[in-house]
Amino acid sequence: MSILIKNARMLKPDFTLAVGDIYIEDSRISEISSKISIEAEEVIDAGGNLVTPGLVNLHTHSGMGLLRGANDDLELAPWLEKLWKIEAKLTPELVYWGSMLSLLEMVKTGTTAFLDMYQDLDQTAKVCEELGVRGFLAWPVVDEDKTTQKGKPLDNAKRFIKDWRGHELVNPGVGPHAIYSCNPDNLAKAKELADKEGTFIHMHLAETRWENETTLENYKERPVPLLESINFLGENDIFAHATWVTKNEIKTLAKARVKIAHNPTSNMKLATGGVMPWKEMKEAGLTVGLGTDSVVSNNNLDMFEEMKFAALLQKAHRWDQAVLDAREAFSMATYEGAKALGLDYGIEEGKLADLIIVDLRNHLMVPHHDLVSNLVYSANGSVVTHTVINGRVVMRDRKVNGEDEIIKKAVSLAKDLVIE
Amino acid sequence: MSILIKNARMLKPDFTLAVGDIYIEDSRISEISSKISIEAEEVIDAGGNLVTPGLVNLHTHSGMGLLRGANDDLELAPWLEKLWKIEAKLTPELVYWGSMLSLLEMVKTGTTAFLDMYQDLDQTAKVCEELGVRGFLAWPVVDEDKTTQKGKPLDNAKRFIKDWRGHELVNPGVGPHAIYSCNPDNLAKAKELADKEGTFIHMHLAETRWENETTLENYKERPVPLLESINFLGENDIFAHATWVTKNEIKTLAKARVKIAHNPTSNMKLATGGVMPWKEMKEAGLTVGLGTDSVVSNNNLDMFEEMKFAALLQKAHRWDQAVLDAREAFSMATYEGAKALGLDYGIEEGKLADLIIVDLRNHLMVPHHDLVSNLVYSANGSVVTHTVINGRVVMRDRKVNGEDEIIKKAVSLAKDLVIE
Repeated sequence: MSILIKNARMLKPDFTLAVGDIYIEDSRISEISSKISIEAEEVIDAGGNLVTPGLVNLHTHSGMGLLRGANDDLELAPWLEKLWKIEAKLTPELVYWGSMLSLLEMVKTGTTAFLDMYQDLDQTAKVCEELGVRGFLAWPVVDEDKTTQKGKPLDNAKRFIKDWRGHELVNPGVGPHAIYSCNPDNLAKAKELADKEGTFIHMHLAETRWENETTLENYKERPVPLLESINFLGENDIFAHATWVTKNEIKTLAKARVKIAHNPTSNMKLATGGVMPWKEMKEAGLTVGLGTDSVVSNNNLDMFEEMKFAALLQKAHRWDQAVLDAREAFSMATYEGAKALGLDYGIEEGKLADLIIVDLRNHLMVPHHDLVSNLVYSANGSVVTHTVINGRVVMRDRKVNGEDEIIKKAVSLAKDLVIE
Repeated sequence: MSILIKNARMLKPDFTLAVGDIYIEDSRISEISSKISIEAEEVIDAGGNLVTPGLVNLHTHSGMGLLRGANDDLELAPWLEKLWKIEAKLTPELVYWGSMLSLLEMVKTGTTAFLDMYQDLDQTAKVCEELGVRGFLAWPVVDEDKTTQKGKPLDNAKRFIKDWRGHELVNPGVGPHAIYSCNPDNLAKAKELADKEGTFIHMHLAETRWENETTLENYKERPVPLLESINFLGENDIFAHATWVTKNEIKTLAKARVKIAHNPTSNMKLATGGVMPWKEMKEAGLTVGLGTDSVVSNNNLDMFEEMKFAALLQKAHRWDQAVLDAREAFSMATYEGAKALGLDYGIEEGKLADLIIVDLRNHLMVPHHDLVSNLVYSANGSVVTHTVINGRVVMRDRKVNGEDEIIKKAVSLAKDLVIE
């Protein structure tokens, strides 16, 4: 498969702009120059519009797609209770169509890769394959007395990794849910499995004060020292949230070279309290990407919006309009997320062909004083016209194959999930 | 002029949904029933999509449209300095095209009425007329030694009111800029003019700690008591921000029945510090609408995004996911804003025909568990397909007359405004 993108304005990793053509062969950018005349199976005239790397959603639960709007504005206890009741009704078919809706939304809003943890993950993997989206899927592991899975979660994780390993789009991993749902012995085994299989770990960490307090109560340690004491911390760990961590814990995390997925919109909507210490993490040298979390706690998967929330939350919190600027927010949503997942991102020869085209005539991108500022502070996902993943055009002129059917199915199937 | 909207799902003021047809005659909704068979000059088949009141942007500066992305991520002092240098280059022509871009964006994102204060306001008024948007335009008044206007600001305000009074879309008012740019004598005169002309006052109030401190230093009073002492407070006042006010000051404002325009995105991006005490204002019975502020401090005019920022900022700030729920956010962006401006809003017979149609097949609006939640927490302005203002279809199927030329002109003219 080859694609020629003509007349592109390219955003380079150093934030300069270059004008020219891009040639893609198989999954990679093979050539960039001012004019390319080689034939290609697919030709896209970018018409001077902006080509940037695709966005990387570093924490979500795609299988919950059909739950958007089913549970909002409650206090934590009734909110959780209602969520569990709804989730108990989810079948593999509903997770499949929920994943379809979620991945359709990713493609429509310029996300090319995502990191996920949810039930019935084979359904989400199938959707990655069918829609053509790059997924990093962490099989959920909780204690055996807490699981609704058939069989033992760790055995299932092993089976999942075996089944999907080596797939061009699906990357299987291990997803110990959180310290409060996985005991230390179980966490250690999950880590062992990930290390042995040479894959990644994805886990919720220090999202709330409650989590810190119960961990301290149950294990006489706060979450980060507890994980350190069982040799859990390592460079294949990607932790979601890490909102409630101290400066010393940040040093520990940085030393172990773990990766962090920051979810500002979810943290704000769920009122998890406090603000994630992004500046301290950055100063400690941590890799921090961005995630939307699920449509129950956001309620969309638009990484453009997530960039804006990330920047504005830090500015508001620190009373400093210069902190977390547009370039840093854009890097978090692209290069940092890609780095966390081991992906080679950037509009350069040899890099992965995971990229998007942004309409510079959309009112949200006009005028053109600073296109990165426009992407972060003004735009939303509707400015994306084309999404290319792994060298394949998944959205062309805002059209995705089969989208009308996905929408229709999602509307119809979701009706059964209502809880009054 | 008559419009028939068929097959609408209508969001009523009590948040119930009704299905049927809507008939519009001149500027008002004349009939709503399950099926209307009267002929109309214009027929729109809503195809089961959602009809809601238009959004009301209660604080912006449209004339700054060409400045989006020209000034971000600096600390306050260099930011202001750069802004003034750019603004010094603005001509009436640039304000005209900046207003064009801003009002185009409003129409594309479902805003039907807005409240504005900026230089060369006749240009913005002309654009209201040409694009068909309902504008409330407060002529900016600052002290005579601070103005760049030809002649005295108060005389100019009087002339502006005389010229535009009675226009079907343009509503002229008086805009004393702020306490730090208008001395008490000047403020009192501005108030006198507004009262005499029977029009409204729009002013920035208590946006920053700095404003409170300098007011205290210069006049031995904080802003609200100072305004009270000169009999400035009254029900025709609409104050932008009011972030830094005490509980007692809120009582004073509520007693005087002033109106408040809350700008959460701008407050966060400009890091004005603290969080606007929305809950206390609501408990005191104040009318609080929402504004985007300008594209320099936001950087868009999308009121959907503003609703989400309003709700999430309060939730995060108060560690309470139940506070400022979706229905309250939607009311702020519609009914409350309309009330502040004296507009009769709502999908009901006899109300103004300022309404929008929202695409319920857009991925951001799917599934349909709770359409108000979807509008506030998931959607952005791109879900709007039709915008009707004052009984005229201003956007149809996402197309606005002349939009390509506006975009082209804006891109080209903005180039002259660059400051390195």
